[in-house]
Amino acid sequence: MSISPISGRRILFAGGCGFIGSHLIDALLQRSDVEQIICVDNLWTGLEDNVRHVTDPRFSVVTCDIEKFQCEDRFDEVYHFASPASPPWYMSDPYRTMSANIGGAMRMLDLLAPDGKFCFASTSEVYGDPLVSPQPESYRGSVDCTGPRSSYDESKRATEALLFEMRRTRGTDIRVVRLFNVFGPRTRPDDGRAVSNFITQALAGRPLTIYGDGLQSRSWGYIDDIVEGLARYFWRDKIDYPGPLNIGNDREVSVIDVARYVSQVMGGCPIQHEAPVPQDPTNRCPDLTLARDLLPGWECKVDYEEGVRRTIDWFREETGRPAPRITLVS
Amino acid sequence: MSISPISGRRILFAGGCGFIGSHLIDALLQRSDVEQIICVDNLWTGLEDNVRHVTDPRFSVVTCDIEKFQCEDRFDEVYHFASPASPPWYMSDPYRTMSANIGGAMRMLDLLAPDGKFCFASTSEVYGDPLVSPQPESYRGSVDCTGPRSSYDESKRATEALLFEMRRTRGTDIRVVRLFNVFGPRTRPDDGRAVSNFITQALAGRPLTIYGDGLQSRSWGYIDDIVEGLARYFWRDKIDYPGPLNIGNDREVSVIDVARYVSQVMGGCPIQHEAPVPQDPTNRCPDLTLARDLLPGWECKVDYEEGVRRTIDWFREETGRPAPRITLVS
Repeated sequence: MSISPISGRRILFAGGCGFIGSHLIDALLQRSDVEQIICVDNLWTGLEDNVRHVTDPRFSVVTCDIEKFQCEDRFDEVYHFASPASPPWYMSDPYRTMSANIGGAMRMLDLLAPDGKFCFASTSEVYGDPLVSPQPESYRGSVDCTGPRSSYDESKRATEALLFEMRRTRGTDIRVVRLFNVFGPRTRPDDGRAVSNFITQALAGRPLTIYGDGLQSRSWGYIDDIVEGLARYFWRDKIDYPGPLNIGNDREVSVIDVARYVSQVMGGCPIQHEAPVPQDPTNRCPDLTLARDLLPGWECKVDYEEGVRRTIDWFREETGRPAPRITLVS
Repeated sequence: MSISPISGRRILFAGGCGFIGSHLIDALLQRSDVEQIICVDNLWTGLEDNVRHVTDPRFSVVTCDIEKFQCEDRFDEVYHFASPASPPWYMSDPYRTMSANIGGAMRMLDLLAPDGKFCFASTSEVYGDPLVSPQPESYRGSVDCTGPRSSYDESKRATEALLFEMRRTRGTDIRVVRLFNVFGPRTRPDDGRAVSNFITQALAGRPLTIYGDGLQSRSWGYIDDIVEGLARYFWRDKIDYPGPLNIGNDREVSVIDVARYVSQVMGGCPIQHEAPVPQDPTNRCPDLTLARDLLPGWECKVDYEEGVRRTIDWFREETGRPAPRITLVS
């Protein structure tokens, strides 16, 4: 009598060529129980460069909209990270944004094995322009469902709704995280959000652009810390809590302070103000009570100053640009 | 030289076999500029009986999910009324509810002529369990996007988002109404909401069931008034306001008062209380400032007492049941 080998986990990852997705794939590939990862990405905002370093034979990329992905297989774990996350990108094609999120989730539900696990990257944008701070997961949010950010915010809310209802009606095993602002290496230079904007502007010798007065606050989570939180939550089997779970840094810093810091370490760049982005939230800060309870010991260890310096280093390597004026301060 | 006749309007109506949809189709067929109405309905909650009286050759029914409807034509007006609206129905199949609303809207956008008009029946449920009363259209709502009502609430919110974003990015002509509680003839006997529940229970000689204490309030709009408001808003060409527009009755009445009234006119039925429905909103009342401004002279003329009596008459005719114990009070 021979004992059949236990077959490994088959994973479907939508949006794996994106900034956060590609880092989470690096972490997934460190798991020895993973047999296969199929990454589906339409390369709208994702970049093949983000996974070019992966040589692991268990990993493959299919260039396709996740909502149209055809496959006979069923997967033990699905990760839904397929969405643009930066306002200029999702505002440019809201139909596609909503299709990727909601249609993508519907398709992935169909591709999930009966006892499979569905992991979804939701967002702090479900809180809209919050009227309470910090935001606990129980806060119902303040989103204008007719506004210019609604294609993103409402498709994330609707996808959460779909998943929680699949859990209620079908018993689907789900894990839903709400990610606050994340930054770090592999952000697109043209991503359009604050940290990467400031760094690419500084590297190009241009003024740093702030939309509005810059007093709007965000909580800046460095990618390594965020991925550690995701891995710990998504991969543990013994958690009975399906989410939603805030994942982020609860140190709230204003956009103008980030600009000033980038300016300082890049040798003094001028800062210029432009018209505010419509319905830009005034504040955003996670209540991490639940995360600390579920993931003991986890926290964002890289402060934003250190994270900004690491991101500058990465952008500089990527652009191959000498930076004689840069003065690193620690 | 001959002058081509002006061809009439081609209309696609999703959910036209439903309670509200079928009444609006009756109104549409009174328009002489309408050349064709294709009604697409999967008969999940709609009933063919609701349109059986229609003999107009311009009207036809296709039994199909709207999100899967295949058609080469493009339509001058589309009406998206395809969704279950009663909690026990939409809670029983949230995937299908969300697919009908959001997938249906995406499909109908594809089928809309370039200069066509998209009319959407949204809902007061986008306000969730509101913290302000009455609710103006600018109120962002208090919806738990992970809760048991979320498949309906969030798919209506997401569909609004999609349509407003199509207007912003593509200039699509949209009209979005938020309907408050509507009642009247052609409600399903097993619809599951208060007025029809009470009437069918009373006709069957059973106690009237109230979920919770019955102090939760609703604004009860009689179908004829609601359809008049819809027709005036949807069909006027000179309105530059795409919505959202509250349509309803702003007389707020508690559920228990409705039960007592039904009991009174039906000759005295006992009322029994059952456990509250999860996340049942405590109150709901439209701020009609905008509707009164846009549709001068329009208001809900049929008070709920009169509407309830008309609805009782209709149910009695439908069931063919003699009702010796009924005492109509005016």
